[in-house]
Amino acid sequence: MIQSRDGSPHPHILVIGAGFGGLTFCQKFGYSEARITLVDRQNHHLFQPLLYQVATAGLSAPEIAQPIRSILRDKPNVTVLLREVTGFNLERREARLGDEVLSYDYLVLAFGGVTSYYNHPEWEAFAPGLKSLDDALRIRRQALLAFERAENSNDPAERQRLMTLIVVGGGPTGIELAGAFAELARYVLRRDFRRIDPRQARVILVEAAPRLLGQFSERLAAKAVARLTKLGVEVRTNVRVETIGEGFLRLADGTRLESANIIWAAGVAAHPLSRTLGVSLDRAGRVLVNPDLSVPQHPEVFAIGDLALVRDQHSQVVPGVSPAAMQMARHVARIVENELRSGRATASSARPAFHYWNKGTMATIGRSAAVAQVGKLEFNGWLAWAAWLLVHLVFLVGFRNKAAVMLQWTYSYFTYQRGSRIVTGIGDSVTDQPASSRTRSAA
Amino acid sequence: MIQSRDGSPHPHILVIGAGFGGLTFCQKFGYSEARITLVDRQNHHLFQPLLYQVATAGLSAPEIAQPIRSILRDKPNVTVLLREVTGFNLERREARLGDEVLSYDYLVLAFGGVTSYYNHPEWEAFAPGLKSLDDALRIRRQALLAFERAENSNDPAERQRLMTLIVVGGGPTGIELAGAFAELARYVLRRDFRRIDPRQARVILVEAAPRLLGQFSERLAAKAVARLTKLGVEVRTNVRVETIGEGFLRLADGTRLESANIIWAAGVAAHPLSRTLGVSLDRAGRVLVNPDLSVPQHPEVFAIGDLALVRDQHSQVVPGVSPAAMQMARHVARIVENELRSGRATASSARPAFHYWNKGTMATIGRSAAVAQVGKLEFNGWLAWAAWLLVHLVFLVGFRNKAAVMLQWTYSYFTYQRGSRIVTGIGDSVTDQPASSRTRSAA
Repeated sequence: MIQSRDGSPHPHILVIGAGFGGLTFCQKFGYSEARITLVDRQNHHLFQPLLYQVATAGLSAPEIAQPIRSILRDKPNVTVLLREVTGFNLERREARLGDEVLSYDYLVLAFGGVTSYYNHPEWEAFAPGLKSLDDALRIRRQALLAFERAENSNDPAERQRLMTLIVVGGGPTGIELAGAFAELARYVLRRDFRRIDPRQARVILVEAAPRLLGQFSERLAAKAVARLTKLGVEVRTNVRVETIGEGFLRLADGTRLESANIIWAAGVAAHPLSRTLGVSLDRAGRVLVNPDLSVPQHPEVFAIGDLALVRDQHSQVVPGVSPAAMQMARHVARIVENELRSGRATASSARPAFHYWNKGTMATIGRSAAVAQVGKLEFNGWLAWAAWLLVHLVFLVGFRNKAAVMLQWTYSYFTYQRGSRIVTGIGDSVTDQPASSRTRSAA
Repeated sequence: MIQSRDGSPHPHILVIGAGFGGLTFCQKFGYSEARITLVDRQNHHLFQPLLYQVATAGLSAPEIAQPIRSILRDKPNVTVLLREVTGFNLERREARLGDEVLSYDYLVLAFGGVTSYYNHPEWEAFAPGLKSLDDALRIRRQALLAFERAENSNDPAERQRLMTLIVVGGGPTGIELAGAFAELARYVLRRDFRRIDPRQARVILVEAAPRLLGQFSERLAAKAVARLTKLGVEVRTNVRVETIGEGFLRLADGTRLESANIIWAAGVAAHPLSRTLGVSLDRAGRVLVNPDLSVPQHPEVFAIGDLALVRDQHSQVVPGVSPAAMQMARHVARIVENELRSGRATASSARPAFHYWNKGTMATIGRSAAVAQVGKLEFNGWLAWAAWLLVHLVFLVGFRNKAAVMLQWTYSYFTYQRGSRIVTGIGDSVTDQPASSRTRSAA
């Protein structure tokens, strides 16, 4: 039997991060003799795929989040700690939590990603990203208050600036944000103002690549552009962002766009905590793991989810999506479970390699429209949208959340209204702060 | 015809505050030739009676709030402004909004109340009140994080301090808060922690008067105490608070209570903006209005809701509750409408006096229990609780909110769970700030 390093007969598994990867590990790990400690900086597991709906006032924060400890209440061998990990000493098998140290027998790194501005961290202050609930609430507050300020303003240029919203990044998140904001202005806010006409709001989607939705087929990407254009979104592809400042964005072709609402959906990197591991990383800070997902030289340490750079059987990089994180979690759970049950530690090379099963990708473009790609199959329009709804409801954690989200969606569908247009913290430091919470999103 | 002061044929009515009073005025006012401007510092109307459920993690903020402009979208003569009123010049019939000035023909003051600490404003930093959504979210965050910190702590005294919650004030709000917090610890959090036992949390309710619920009968107050005690709440009546500091409270009998969660539900005063009116106020800052609710010497200015000091036909002060504010709003709407239709301004003494119709008072004490008093009739237990649910659902604004709240309540009733245990802004300035948003709650 594997003896725990702290002398206990119960080996200790330390899991960092309660996103899709960390949470799935705790849920699927079946060897109850082991003690698991799950550490996260937030008290909730977040259903990231619906985060854009909180940012666009469709859902409220508690509807897409669930307290971690309540999800795991029936796992008596799992202890959840709301703490911040500050560093690691892999040689001594220790994680640092400020002044405290936690030792482990196995370590599962699942602290995910943060918004990346590449070499322009200064843009963060002017163009928030969308990784955490705090981010989403900040974007929602900013966009809704911009319409309020436009209603109060007598200056036409200022009004137009306030009513212009720019999304940088034409991946699924960028498209979903742009579509939802265009609908917000066109349908939801339409009759609510007296001095401005929200339908005159501009929503601009900027993408550096030649086309949107690089991971989808060209045909589906074209469908998405057609749908976005119909919603009134101005799609600008093949143009890089040159600079972003307070209330404006300049493109590489020289165009200067004035906007009070710039949202960054163009890049993700691993959480900077990965730099404290002392192992090989790629440029985005991801851990270059072995085929079994363990960290080189450390068979007792695994990295999963957005934090791991893994290639599938076709040598393609496994994308940073939730199904991949969950598959990796199950893979690692099986390995650790087998070793603990058998009482024999194995070398990384003797373990099964991780194989990614791509179940498909989808993105919604506002009401009643979506694109979906499942292997060689392609869907768009109403059918894809219905499939999107179903898949997202099924995977949402917790009965209450499912029912609440279904209620909101049904209500929005029939009334063209949205449930979460409430702004709190008006005038608070929160409103003006360049969201110091951003890098707090992951672990 | 009454000519508007700004030369327009459409007289201008300025309403300050979109609480129950201001909103009801806009909804009930039926003379469409008049222009109404409704000014509020928040973008939402708040259903105050359920605010304690947001503070105790039962409901989410958007479930008890609705955007003001969406409620009034079908009133084309009403313009909603998200602005802050900074002062008045009643002689010139003007309200100041920072640098701007709005003139009016009629002025309806409905900017409500704020938490009052009497002569101890310094207690605000240690014992937040409950008037706005920001307040409720702050209390919820603080209480939930206290349990998390207790789980992380190894110091028994510190644990107990973190797991002690004190509510100051034994009126309906104090009782509802104490009952809901006791249930949170006893049932909801029960199985979620590994190191602490949330059932050992202490909830203490402190009231200076000889008994709780002064506005209810002695019999009902005794029922409430019995019910609270059964839930594990320690009820301390007949004892004043001597001082409140960081993490402790000292009673006049010398007892020192250590607690990380002290909530102030003991006093309300009019919003300090009333001091800029230059009219007679009582000690709590309320306007001493004429029987028709107009302000002395200014028949074109009315004060309604928590802001007005009015006596009913039995010379009792009309309580600061939402039905009273709504009745006052309807009364003033009728007066102004009649004058504008007839084209004749009348003296205050020639107008009908306001009569308060007390429909009854109720308060819940946790799950399946409540007290209600309707005239000489008294109810308690399950029946009163069912009546409480029904009344609160019926008066909640908006179909979506009703359905969402009903769903949450049904879920909580059957599962003993709560829907809104999500904490955002952890570690943000919000957490530590002594809620500068408090005085922002009313107008």
